[in-house]
Amino acid sequence: MDLKERAALTKNAAIHLAALDTDTKNNALKAMVDALRARSTEIVEANHKDLLIAEAENLEAPLLKRLRFDEKKVAEVVAGIESLILLPEPVGKINSETELDNGLNLKQISCPIGVVGVIFESRPDALVQISSLCLKSGNGTLLKGGREALHTNRILTEIIVAATTSVGVPANWMELLETREDVNAMLALDESIDLIIPRGSNEFVQYIMANSNIPVLGHADGICHLYVDNEADIEQAIPIAVDSKCQYVAVCNALETMLVHEAIAVEFLPKYFEATRQYDLELRGCQKTQAIIDCKAATDEDWKTEYLDYILSIKVVDDMAEAINHINYYGSGHTEVILSTNPNHANTFMALCDSGNVMWNASTRFSDGFRYGLGAEVGISTNKIHARGPVGLEGLLIYKWKLVGHGHTVAPYANGEKEFTHKRIR
Amino acid sequence: MDLKERAALTKNAAIHLAALDTDTKNNALKAMVDALRARSTEIVEANHKDLLIAEAENLEAPLLKRLRFDEKKVAEVVAGIESLILLPEPVGKINSETELDNGLNLKQISCPIGVVGVIFESRPDALVQISSLCLKSGNGTLLKGGREALHTNRILTEIIVAATTSVGVPANWMELLETREDVNAMLALDESIDLIIPRGSNEFVQYIMANSNIPVLGHADGICHLYVDNEADIEQAIPIAVDSKCQYVAVCNALETMLVHEAIAVEFLPKYFEATRQYDLELRGCQKTQAIIDCKAATDEDWKTEYLDYILSIKVVDDMAEAINHINYYGSGHTEVILSTNPNHANTFMALCDSGNVMWNASTRFSDGFRYGLGAEVGISTNKIHARGPVGLEGLLIYKWKLVGHGHTVAPYANGEKEFTHKRIR
Repeated sequence: MDLKERAALTKNAAIHLAALDTDTKNNALKAMVDALRARSTEIVEANHKDLLIAEAENLEAPLLKRLRFDEKKVAEVVAGIESLILLPEPVGKINSETELDNGLNLKQISCPIGVVGVIFESRPDALVQISSLCLKSGNGTLLKGGREALHTNRILTEIIVAATTSVGVPANWMELLETREDVNAMLALDESIDLIIPRGSNEFVQYIMANSNIPVLGHADGICHLYVDNEADIEQAIPIAVDSKCQYVAVCNALETMLVHEAIAVEFLPKYFEATRQYDLELRGCQKTQAIIDCKAATDEDWKTEYLDYILSIKVVDDMAEAINHINYYGSGHTEVILSTNPNHANTFMALCDSGNVMWNASTRFSDGFRYGLGAEVGISTNKIHARGPVGLEGLLIYKWKLVGHGHTVAPYANGEKEFTHKRIR
Repeated sequence: MDLKERAALTKNAAIHLAALDTDTKNNALKAMVDALRARSTEIVEANHKDLLIAEAENLEAPLLKRLRFDEKKVAEVVAGIESLILLPEPVGKINSETELDNGLNLKQISCPIGVVGVIFESRPDALVQISSLCLKSGNGTLLKGGREALHTNRILTEIIVAATTSVGVPANWMELLETREDVNAMLALDESIDLIIPRGSNEFVQYIMANSNIPVLGHADGICHLYVDNEADIEQAIPIAVDSKCQYVAVCNALETMLVHEAIAVEFLPKYFEATRQYDLELRGCQKTQAIIDCKAATDEDWKTEYLDYILSIKVVDDMAEAINHINYYGSGHTEVILSTNPNHANTFMALCDSGNVMWNASTRFSDGFRYGLGAEVGISTNKIHARGPVGLEGLLIYKWKLVGHGHTVAPYANGEKEFTHKRIR
C-alpha cells in the first residue's frame, strides 16, 4: 500500500478515534504501559542493533547518547504515559455555550485536529511521547523518526499499535514512516493530513514549510535574546545570563544574542566575561562591546545566527527601545528575557517583544514543555496562529461548533419575526 | 512607498497597537463612530460615485445592492462598532497560570496575532466591520476591498485612520490596498503579515492558499449537507430542509447536498418536492431518488459542487454511516445537519462529521458569526487549526507565555538540586 492509501486509512481511523470515550483512551494508554514494560528486553535489543550500526557509521557521541534506549528510558517513557493518564480529558470540553434563542443552543466544544504528521530527530523516546499525546488528544498520527533509530522505532510502533488496538483504538490510527521519500510524499497529502510538526535543523524545517500546503507548526530558528537593563541587579543577572547560554548550548532555547544597556555595560560585561571563562565561550561583540571586553567583532550575520554552540553575540544598546527593535527585527519569535529590577521596564519589554515566550529575571532555558508543566511536548512553535511556544496536549486540539435546535429555521430571524436572545451560558 | 515598506510600517504599528490599553482602544472606536456619523454625507456621496460607475459597467443587481452604502448602512455599521465597544477586552486575558516553583510564575496571556491581511468582496460595510474588529483585538491590518467600491473604501479608510490615530492609535496601523498587484505583492510579505483572511469565490480563495506561505484562514467551498434520518420528524424536517436550501442560495452556509435515509425517503421526498415547488428548485438525484420523485440525475461531480444557486443534489443512503462517510469524503468541513428525533443518532452524527459546524434539527443557515452571537465576523473558516466556523474577535487572538522569575536558572532543576512544583493557579 502506498503512503496515500495508508494516510487515508489513518484519516478514517482518526474520525473514530476523535469520538472515543475517556475510559477507552486511558485503557489504551495503560495497555501501552504494560506492553512497553513486558517487552522492554525486545526494545533494548532492537536499540542495541541501532547503536551498533550507528557506532559503525561513526555517529557523534551526543547523537549516540540520544539514540540510546535502555531499561531506564523505558521506565521514563512509561512514567510519562502514566502522568498523561492522570490528566483531565482534553476532548469534549465546552469552551463556551450560548442560548441563541429559546430551544436553540450553541456550544463550542474542543476536539482533536485530525491527523498530525510528526517528523522527529533521533531520540526514540519522542515516538512514545508523541504517540501517547496524540492518543490522549484523539489524533491520528503519521510518525517519521530518525533513520538511525529504525529498529527501535519499529519495535516501539509494533508494541504501541498492538497494545492500543487490542483495547478498542481503531486500527491504522498510527503509522510509522521509514524513508525520506515518505516524508516528501507526506508533504503532498493535504487531503489526509491536517498538521505537520517538524522537528530538526533550521534548514529541514524551512524545507518542510516551503514545500507543503499543509499547515506547519514548529520553529526553524531559535534566536533567543537576553536584554540586560540599566536597572538590572548584576549579581542576579550574571548567573541567568550564564545559564541561558552555557547550561546546554545545542538547543533552541539557548541564548544566542545578548543586548546590554550602555549604562550598565562597563560594569556587567567584564563580570560576564569572567563568569563564562570556564566554558571557553567565544564572544562576538559590537564596537562598543569590543571597547569594554576582549572579543571578536560581530557582523550583521551574527545577529541572524542561531549558533547552537559555545558562541554568543553581544550588542551594547542605547536604551530598551533599541533592544526591543533589535529583537523584533532579528529575532525568531522564540524566547526573550529582560533582566531588570524595574517592573515598568519589564512589563514594557514583555508587552512589546513579539515572541512566544517573554521572561523577566529568568533563564531562556525554561522555555520548554516539561518545565512549563505541560507534560510532554510535541515541539516548540514560533507560529503566530494556533499555538505558540512549547506545544503540549492543548496544541493538538481545535473545536467544533455544535448547534442543537428544535426545528429552528433562519427565515423568521431574517424577516424580523423573531429575535436572537444570545444569552451567554458559559 | 511600495507595499513592502508600507507593510513593514504596519507591522511596527501593530507591535505598539498590541500593547494599547482598553480605554485608548475603546476611545478610538468611539472616535470612529463620531467621525462616521459626522461625515456620513461624504461617504454616501463617494458611494454614489461607485454606484454610478457600477451601473455604467452593468454590474448585476445583487452586486449593486451589496455595494450600496447609504445613511441606513452608516447607522448599521455604527451600531456594530458600539456593540463592539461593550465587549470585554480580549487582549491580556490570563488563559492559564502555573507556579513552576517558588517565585517562578508562568502565565499564558491572550494577545493579538499581529498583522492580518483581509481581502473582501464588494460590500464596503465589511471594511468598517473588519477594521473595528482588528482594532478591538489589537491587530494591524492591510485591507483590500472590491474594485467597484474603491471610492467608498477610500473615504471610509481616511475617516477611520484620522479618527483612530487622533486619539493615540499608532499611525499606519491600517492600510488600504487598491490593486490586484497589491494582492499578489501581499502574498509574498510573510515577514510582515501573519495571517491572510480571503473572502470571495472558491477559485480566488484557492489561488490565495496555493500562492502564499502566510497562513490562510477561510474557506474555499461551502458544501453543506443535511441528513434526514430514518427517525426524523417529517413535519419538522421539511421546513428546515427548505430553509437551509432556499432562504438564501448565494451563500456558503446554504445547503448543497441532501442525504435521505432510505426508510424515510418514500415519504419525505415527495413532500419536500411539493414544499420547494414555489422556488423553482432544480433537484438532481441519485437513482433511488429518481425512482421516488421526478428529477435530473446527479453525477459524481454534483457531490463535489457548491451550486450557490437554486439547485440541490439528493442522495438516498442505506444508513447514517453512509451519510457520514459521504459527508467526510465529499464535504468541505463547513456545516452539516442531522434531522432526527433520536438523540443517539444525533450525537453520533455530530461526533463523526468532521466539520466546523454540526447541527441537530436546525437550519444550516445559522452557521454565521452574527447568528452565533460573536458580534461581527471576519469570515468563516474550514481550517483544522486555529479557528473553525464563524470567526469573530476570538479568531484574531493568539497568546504569549510570560514567565516571571527572581533570578531562576535551569541548572539546579537539571541536576536534581531543585524540583518544579507545577502548581496550577488557574
